[in-house]
Amino acid sequence: MSTQPMERAPAGAPPAQEPESEVRRKARLAKAAARRLALLSTERKDAALRAIAAELEAKADEIIAANGKDLENARQKGVSAALLDRLALTRERIQGIAAGVREVAELPDPVGETVRAWRRPNGLEISQVRVPLGVVGIIYEARPNVTADAAALCLKSGNAALLRGSSEALESNKAIAAAIQDALEQSGLPREAVQLIEDTDRSAAQEMMRLNGLIDVLIPRGGAGLIQAVVQNATVPVIETGVGNCHIYVHADADLDKAEAIVINAKTRRCSVCNAVETLLVDAKVAEAFLPRIGRALEEAGVEIRGCERTRRWIPQAKPAVEEDWYAEYLALILAVKVVDGIDEAIDHIERYGSHHSDAIVTENYSVARRFTREVDSAAVYVNASTYFTDGNQFGFGAEIGISTQKLHARGPMGLPELTSTKYVIHGDGQIRV
Amino acid sequence: MSTQPMERAPAGAPPAQEPESEVRRKARLAKAAARRLALLSTERKDAALRAIAAELEAKADEIIAANGKDLENARQKGVSAALLDRLALTRERIQGIAAGVREVAELPDPVGETVRAWRRPNGLEISQVRVPLGVVGIIYEARPNVTADAAALCLKSGNAALLRGSSEALESNKAIAAAIQDALEQSGLPREAVQLIEDTDRSAAQEMMRLNGLIDVLIPRGGAGLIQAVVQNATVPVIETGVGNCHIYVHADADLDKAEAIVINAKTRRCSVCNAVETLLVDAKVAEAFLPRIGRALEEAGVEIRGCERTRRWIPQAKPAVEEDWYAEYLALILAVKVVDGIDEAIDHIERYGSHHSDAIVTENYSVARRFTREVDSAAVYVNASTYFTDGNQFGFGAEIGISTQKLHARGPMGLPELTSTKYVIHGDGQIRV
Repeated sequence: MSTQPMERAPAGAPPAQEPESEVRRKARLAKAAARRLALLSTERKDAALRAIAAELEAKADEIIAANGKDLENARQKGVSAALLDRLALTRERIQGIAAGVREVAELPDPVGETVRAWRRPNGLEISQVRVPLGVVGIIYEARPNVTADAAALCLKSGNAALLRGSSEALESNKAIAAAIQDALEQSGLPREAVQLIEDTDRSAAQEMMRLNGLIDVLIPRGGAGLIQAVVQNATVPVIETGVGNCHIYVHADADLDKAEAIVINAKTRRCSVCNAVETLLVDAKVAEAFLPRIGRALEEAGVEIRGCERTRRWIPQAKPAVEEDWYAEYLALILAVKVVDGIDEAIDHIERYGSHHSDAIVTENYSVARRFTREVDSAAVYVNASTYFTDGNQFGFGAEIGISTQKLHARGPMGLPELTSTKYVIHGDGQIRV
Repeated sequence: MSTQPMERAPAGAPPAQEPESEVRRKARLAKAAARRLALLSTERKDAALRAIAAELEAKADEIIAANGKDLENARQKGVSAALLDRLALTRERIQGIAAGVREVAELPDPVGETVRAWRRPNGLEISQVRVPLGVVGIIYEARPNVTADAAALCLKSGNAALLRGSSEALESNKAIAAAIQDALEQSGLPREAVQLIEDTDRSAAQEMMRLNGLIDVLIPRGGAGLIQAVVQNATVPVIETGVGNCHIYVHADADLDKAEAIVINAKTRRCSVCNAVETLLVDAKVAEAFLPRIGRALEEAGVEIRGCERTRRWIPQAKPAVEEDWYAEYLALILAVKVVDGIDEAIDHIERYGSHHSDAIVTENYSVARRFTREVDSAAVYVNASTYFTDGNQFGFGAEIGISTQKLHARGPMGLPELTSTKYVIHGDGQIRV
């Protein structure tokens, strides 16, 4: 270990001679704000959140006007109707966003919680206490509601938020961030606790990815391309979220009514999200009994089936599946279907092709259910339930900042405690180590 | 989110046409072994650990002979006596290593622990269960004991270990790894559960840093240069360990006897480790009472003092401190000393220059102690105790794999639970999401 100051040196100062970039300046201000946020009482934070909700409602007209500019630009660029819909803000949607912020105010504050505490034989009293992470950077795509959602979750957990949305939503995000900052100021909190990076150039995002010492964690929210760009380029610690190639395995001892209901729900409830099922594995022993009926049900629901050879014997209208189908996160009304010979092949398939997000078995067999839950290495492993339940709200966490598909720090839906770190506090009476 | 298979594709297969590198081949085998390790009972793992300890003792002669080659090479390169000492293995040291492995066998198994479990209103039963991380990569310097220590901790926590030591210890590491692999095989476990990367070229380490999908986490153990190289280059998640610029603040209301004992202990017990104190902050109100006596005591202990201007009024023999001294992790019998005007300046100094590892206050003042523990943002914050206690053994965790100075996943001494992730297991009766 060296005696050089290294990169820990002046976290506050810009590199000599160069004008300070927007990203660095805002990150530096966020770092200073984070020290104040970490010490705020729950009451102060909740009051600020309620002020933010009120301000978002009060500024609805301005926000909708700003959103109109984004929509107009997007239309001129010819973006898809689906994207336009995700981008659009209405008075009702803004009320929904404000309601979400108020819900965060109702959630328990994770900061200050004593995770565990014990006394050592030498009399030292050690406690592990939850503390904020510091500055949380969020790089996200299109949806402007993320601006308020993420800000609220960061604020409640005592973190400063550095938000970098996409260019498509820039005007909307600016209007929302301005309302949040005004509410922070009214509440006596630093405006810099929530900041939007307005530079939507790729280089600004890349600068965030390497701001070690100023940004404590980066959470990308969006498509696989965005997430992989952050994972590949960041030196700041990253929490990888969201890619879901989820499986349902219908075992030989499945209750086929449950199986059908679960498969249809997990594919068709809302197919564009990461916890939707993408591959159905059907045990060869129930292929004849299950495939024709699920084929009909899927067809009625408008789902395109891409099946292995054996699947196509029972579902003739299925297209032939190719190797890529087993890896695919369709996020569309498409389902890959494969017949497997027992639980070993099912687990091997999931381990090989899956994204370790959410995987389910349908079975009435006790030992098989136990094996599946032990051996499938995914963030959420289900027996006889839809993969759609992998969600902070459905788990009972209240809001979520994302669903982690990595193994470090947090795995699965991330609520407020996942936006904290801990520190050890040690009380002594002059103890020295012999 | 895309429908491309992307980098999650064939984790097993080498890039087409190229011969598979040692790193990728061993990582691939480790990944396969990890699936088996994750399912082993505690009894099987503990038996393997005891077999490893016995094998290390039985092969002591071979290990010492291999170590002799490393020592001879090191002497020819003219390395320092301190490094030779860290490299050297004796029969006694090997017994110490074996005893360490047996101690790991006695520790509780973190795998399978239910962290929390609850029932949702719809009847779903959700439990969060500890699971291994998978493949843990460790990149470390000189000391060959790390080979056995890290292997034992990974094995007990159900992880495969991919070890990459330094060229100086290559022969010793190979001998130790061979003994471990033989013991694994005798115990019916896969040899590939613990593997040493023998390619000591920098490119091999760099390959490890980017093996996403095969290596689940990288833990660098060594100097600041190594750690920063891993943080800067890795796309695999990293746990940053060990750099410690630790402070002791002697407050105006300190018991000066405790203060002297703590400062002398924290500087001189073993100055080359990351939890040693590097900067002493003395409140101006007790400068006259404390500095002359601590100056004498430090001098008697052979410690070089680098003081601010006010310090040098009371310790005339102190050298003048320069800006770099406040950032320095000396790891030597050198102490930077600064007089500060109260707790605000002390906390600001620690936040600005510190490494957020371990920082202590000496005070009898209740409110000041509370402020210090709340406001100092370090992995371990002490009141009236030596910073030397930041250590897995001293905390009561048994062995440790390192001391994390980052905020994600683990912070402070990392024991066995910090080498695990969790997954959610959800039991239902056919629930679908409405």
